[in-house]
Amino acid sequence: MRGVVMYGPGDVRVEERDDPRVIEPTDAVIRLTATCICGSDLWPYRGVEPVDHQPMGHEYVGVVEEVGAQVKNVKVGDFVVGSFCISDNTCEICQAGYQSRCVHGEFVSVTIGTQATRARIPHADGTLVATPGQPDPELLPSLLAASDVLGTGWFAAVAAEVGPGKTVAVVGDGAVGLMGVLAARQLGAERIIAMSRHAVRQALAKEYGATDIVEERGEEGIARIKDLTGGLGAHSVIEAVGTQESMLQAIGATRPGGHFGYVGVAHDEVKLPGDQLFFSTVHLHGGPAPVRRFLPELIQLIWDRTINPGTVFDLTLPLEQAAEGYQAMDQRRATKVLLTV
Amino acid sequence: MRGVVMYGPGDVRVEERDDPRVIEPTDAVIRLTATCICGSDLWPYRGVEPVDHQPMGHEYVGVVEEVGAQVKNVKVGDFVVGSFCISDNTCEICQAGYQSRCVHGEFVSVTIGTQATRARIPHADGTLVATPGQPDPELLPSLLAASDVLGTGWFAAVAAEVGPGKTVAVVGDGAVGLMGVLAARQLGAERIIAMSRHAVRQALAKEYGATDIVEERGEEGIARIKDLTGGLGAHSVIEAVGTQESMLQAIGATRPGGHFGYVGVAHDEVKLPGDQLFFSTVHLHGGPAPVRRFLPELIQLIWDRTINPGTVFDLTLPLEQAAEGYQAMDQRRATKVLLTV
Repeated sequence: MRGVVMYGPGDVRVEERDDPRVIEPTDAVIRLTATCICGSDLWPYRGVEPVDHQPMGHEYVGVVEEVGAQVKNVKVGDFVVGSFCISDNTCEICQAGYQSRCVHGEFVSVTIGTQATRARIPHADGTLVATPGQPDPELLPSLLAASDVLGTGWFAAVAAEVGPGKTVAVVGDGAVGLMGVLAARQLGAERIIAMSRHAVRQALAKEYGATDIVEERGEEGIARIKDLTGGLGAHSVIEAVGTQESMLQAIGATRPGGHFGYVGVAHDEVKLPGDQLFFSTVHLHGGPAPVRRFLPELIQLIWDRTINPGTVFDLTLPLEQAAEGYQAMDQRRATKVLLTV
Repeated sequence: MRGVVMYGPGDVRVEERDDPRVIEPTDAVIRLTATCICGSDLWPYRGVEPVDHQPMGHEYVGVVEEVGAQVKNVKVGDFVVGSFCISDNTCEICQAGYQSRCVHGEFVSVTIGTQATRARIPHADGTLVATPGQPDPELLPSLLAASDVLGTGWFAAVAAEVGPGKTVAVVGDGAVGLMGVLAARQLGAERIIAMSRHAVRQALAKEYGATDIVEERGEEGIARIKDLTGGLGAHSVIEAVGTQESMLQAIGATRPGGHFGYVGVAHDEVKLPGDQLFFSTVHLHGGPAPVRRFLPELIQLIWDRTINPGTVFDLTLPLEQAAEGYQAMDQRRATKVLLTV
């Protein structure tokens, strides 16, 4: 099969890789219909994370080609959406809604790599969700978004306890931040403040439901959020960047007792100051999103045309041109790149 | 009046201070019945926080002597318990339950100092809670505990979402940690693991409801908690120390999706690593406890003899011997010192 391999920072190639096959009786093999490039794929691309001949990709939709003997919930021919984390969906942690920390969990990005024509999905019953039928082609981008960016933005909004009557601030105007705006709207937020200084993304944020745009960052950004909230700060803040500056901006923009949901992958240079955190009196929750928890609901919302997150993809390329897709995202010429298979 | 003043690290004196009087119409002046020394008073005593001629103390019970013209909820002669944070209890933040971050808030320790015979309490209606009647002397220690250590331990347990069926770990065997054990028991925790290597405090923890004791700390402590919880970690972890080691121990002991409630005053040397926090997938909540939120309930539990937190005081001295009290706590000869007025 064909698949994307990152040889090193900035060096992305599409090459022949071994065809996947069922190994464990709980595996499925899927033929991908579409996959995409994630903002987090830029970390190794930019040399922030080490990388050496790594098969890439962790978002995927496709058709089941083969299943192991113990797989019961999906069958050959089903169209499926999966999470970027493998999960059995039966352990105590999964049952509590944290499928991204399943006791049998693994990251698709580390062990599988779905920027490819095919993929072996372990724990297929606990990881994959079949759509109600074969989807119209127009639904493919939205279903693919559910695999990570939508599911992650949704988790951030849930972690930030977004709900009716609340004012929500969203730090980060990448695909996940934009999906956080969409989620906040769906979850009934009264006011949604997108923090962005990028005209195209501001427009997209408004399309997804943002009521206000704040261009300032850091202390100035915090001051603007306070201005807009009677001096108190937002009830809920979604953080979708993962840098020291963005984390502190998000905590500072949250009112005392408010909720801060963070899904930007924080790296080891991020050090949250204990005293600032302590006196902020905010709730913090985040991490790798348990997308599997939300997949059935998100698939239905997409199926019913209630939400249309697929518009977050602003560049579509064939898998063979993945390198160009990485470049476009790195240079911020594209928010998110869909790769057709 | 007489009051404790910390001249500098290790230098505590009891001296004449100006008598307090009603200044604002929302003030009350109280005559203290008892006050005490807090673990957080040891930070400046040990030179960790700067201190220069600071009137000390933020825990207090006493009798109202004078009220301003606008005070309605307490009257002269009432026996009252107050929080260590002044609050109006009417602003949006107070109404959301975060009286420790009231828009009119101030720390009693900074502006008032209740290790004294009298004190002016601003926003008396929103800060003080009258007991159902004049308390029996035996109830005084418990009512005083409600002012901070009990209220703070209780908040930590609520922040850690302690409840029926949950396993709770408590990091820190000082007065607040012990009150966290008591709170966890009251809130219905199934199993309460006290982390302590101090025999007297272990015994007290068991008295308050601890079911298990873990003496190990750091990575070994985390491993022990995992051993005791099927490899997953505790559902709820209470942190009542505030150091880098204790914070990381507490986060590490919390299961994915679990709740970490922290009330140990974190200082600026505490830096929580972003990546560790991110991949932990835990909920964090804490800060200066909004004790006022819990005071009516806690006073009633004490009044009804349902809880007896006053046993956390293991040394009682007259106010004039405050310096000896500070020494005893600094040298860990006493867990918590009550000062009679």
